Amino acid sequence: MTSRALAVDIGGTKIATAVVDADGTLRGAARRPVPVVGPSGAGPSGAEQVFGAVRDCVAESLSVAEIDAADVAGVGCGCAGPMRWPAGVVSPLNIPAWREFPLRDRLRDLVGGAPVFVHNDGIALAAGEHWAGVGRGVRNLLAVTVSTGVGGGLVLGGRLLHGGWGNAGHIGHVTVAVDGPPCPCGSRGCLEVMAAGPHTVRRAQAAGWVPPVGQPADGRTLAASAAAGDQTARRELVRSGSAVGAGLASAANLLDLDAAVVAGGFAQSGPIFWDAMRAGFDRHAGLAFARRLRILRSADPDRVALWGAAAFVLAADRYGGWPDAEPVGG
Amino acid sequence: MTSRALAVDIGGTKIATAVVDADGTLRGAARRPVPVVGPSGAGPSGAEQVFGAVRDCVAESLSVAEIDAADVAGVGCGCAGPMRWPAGVVSPLNIPAWREFPLRDRLRDLVGGAPVFVHNDGIALAAGEHWAGVGRGVRNLLAVTVSTGVGGGLVLGGRLLHGGWGNAGHIGHVTVAVDGPPCPCGSRGCLEVMAAGPHTVRRAQAAGWVPPVGQPADGRTLAASAAAGDQTARRELVRSGSAVGAGLASAANLLDLDAAVVAGGFAQSGPIFWDAMRAGFDRHAGLAFARRLRILRSADPDRVALWGAAAFVLAADRYGGWPDAEPVGG
Repeated sequence: MTSRALAVDIGGTKIATAVVDADGTLRGAARRPVPVVGPSGAGPSGAEQVFGAVRDCVAESLSVAEIDAADVAGVGCGCAGPMRWPAGVVSPLNIPAWREFPLRDRLRDLVGGAPVFVHNDGIALAAGEHWAGVGRGVRNLLAVTVSTGVGGGLVLGGRLLHGGWGNAGHIGHVTVAVDGPPCPCGSRGCLEVMAAGPHTVRRAQAAGWVPPVGQPADGRTLAASAAAGDQTARRELVRSGSAVGAGLASAANLLDLDAAVVAGGFAQSGPIFWDAMRAGFDRHAGLAFARRLRILRSADPDRVALWGAAAFVLAADRYGGWPDAEPVGG
Repeated sequence: MTSRALAVDIGGTKIATAVVDADGTLRGAARRPVPVVGPSGAGPSGAEQVFGAVRDCVAESLSVAEIDAADVAGVGCGCAGPMRWPAGVVSPLNIPAWREFPLRDRLRDLVGGAPVFVHNDGIALAAGEHWAGVGRGVRNLLAVTVSTGVGGGLVLGGRLLHGGWGNAGHIGHVTVAVDGPPCPCGSRGCLEVMAAGPHTVRRAQAAGWVPPVGQPADGRTLAASAAAGDQTARRELVRSGSAVGAGLASAANLLDLDAAVVAGGFAQSGPIFWDAMRAGFDRHAGLAFARRLRILRSADPDRVALWGAAAFVLAADRYGGWPDAEPVGG
């Protein structure tokens, strides 16, 4: 009766929730945009406005699924970082109204004290792909998202890797070019600064690329320009894909992986990026054990994010091992 | 009574063995050079000549420790790769007489059928540092050797990571320079080709460095030249150390590690390499969770290699989880 979880996925721009059954069925899936809270709305009221959208979304999911809040086994939540883990105190880069926001405690209040697990969204993606996505049954799996940033998560030996501070799988800040450009993280030549959408767009613009009139200078437009034959757009897209391929090869060499699942709008912008990524991997994976890596395309990242959040609750044997067995409540 | 292991460490040039007690005490430590078997000695007889040295070394250890072969709980062995794992069929790069040599089966014959665990030497180093070396008590640990190659192993969440094919921790082939020089593995810009002793020496020679008369062109001589003020030697040594630092930062970012133990003659060639490594790490570890990595110096790598081999047998709760619970015999 209680083998169902409430799953919550909070990104920079959208909130998604659902009730997830033990077999992976999603019920009452609901979405809200993250409220855009202007500078004047910062502070407690801005934070509450954002949490209000989470609360509404959760209420809709429970209502449509016809589940009482007291009847969920727990809440799993993937959230954009950084965060303090396992405390679930979050400060998502793209949600300025939330700084040190006690998300875990607030979610617990919504479900009458059931256990709540809040983790980085890249780690939720890895758990979801492994539990019910295209990575099912893979013993050593990397999940990677390439969009406005580059993130990820790891399942090693069939178990989710948390890392000491809850940041395992942070592949965006692996160094792929020791003398590369500065990264906002403070390093140089990180995969993220070489490959994420906005950085690639900036590089293309600096090289003379201009988006067609009326279209935004974003990764989607850049990919469309490249597909239409713009050589600058193509070159920068290839550089990005190639860097991601090198990053996958690094992870395969370091961790002796079986497969990687790649998600994210920029990675899935079309064959130019994808083919460059595969070629970059082939160029940088020399040893037989690394070359065996299967590179898979995430089939449905939005659904996978909710599966991952639910897996924290419903499949603790593989995705558990958190520092507190029952992080809050229970 | 049987809580003791026979530990075997086989590198490119030396064989070392000891009896290891459950508290880490080494007894009957013995060493032999790997017999240099010329081209005419290849084939079965060359292979047997090398194994004969292993057998003699084991016999000396058992005899000095006054232990009967039947009284060891098992044999643990770290060996230079590549190898088929967990089969323990080895083809060490620097021991040409051993190609697909059935080391695990042959070791079993020496001890009357007790279980035998053969693993890559980098993985044995990680197990040894974690079980009884400077990495004791560290939950998320990387061990790295920088000498003629760059190798390593990982303990994550307090447990040794094997990887799907037994190659986890192979940090030497992480890409640190996407457009870097070709690596013998088939990739480009791998940490090993940027940082291992022989590659660094070749780079320095290409830039005009010449070893003092009568001294070999090796990493030790290069480090001595750098310490004596040779600017070319210094620059190349700094590039190597810096690349290792970037590799440590990559691993810290990807795996959210607590500490790294660094071993190997080239890494321990003096403060020029070591300081450059630390500076490279500082430059490439931007995020707070990665910056917390403690970089430790291996205190006694020869002893640690034997500890690690013994740990496969004596502390299976942390260093076990091999595909076959009892790889051979038992």
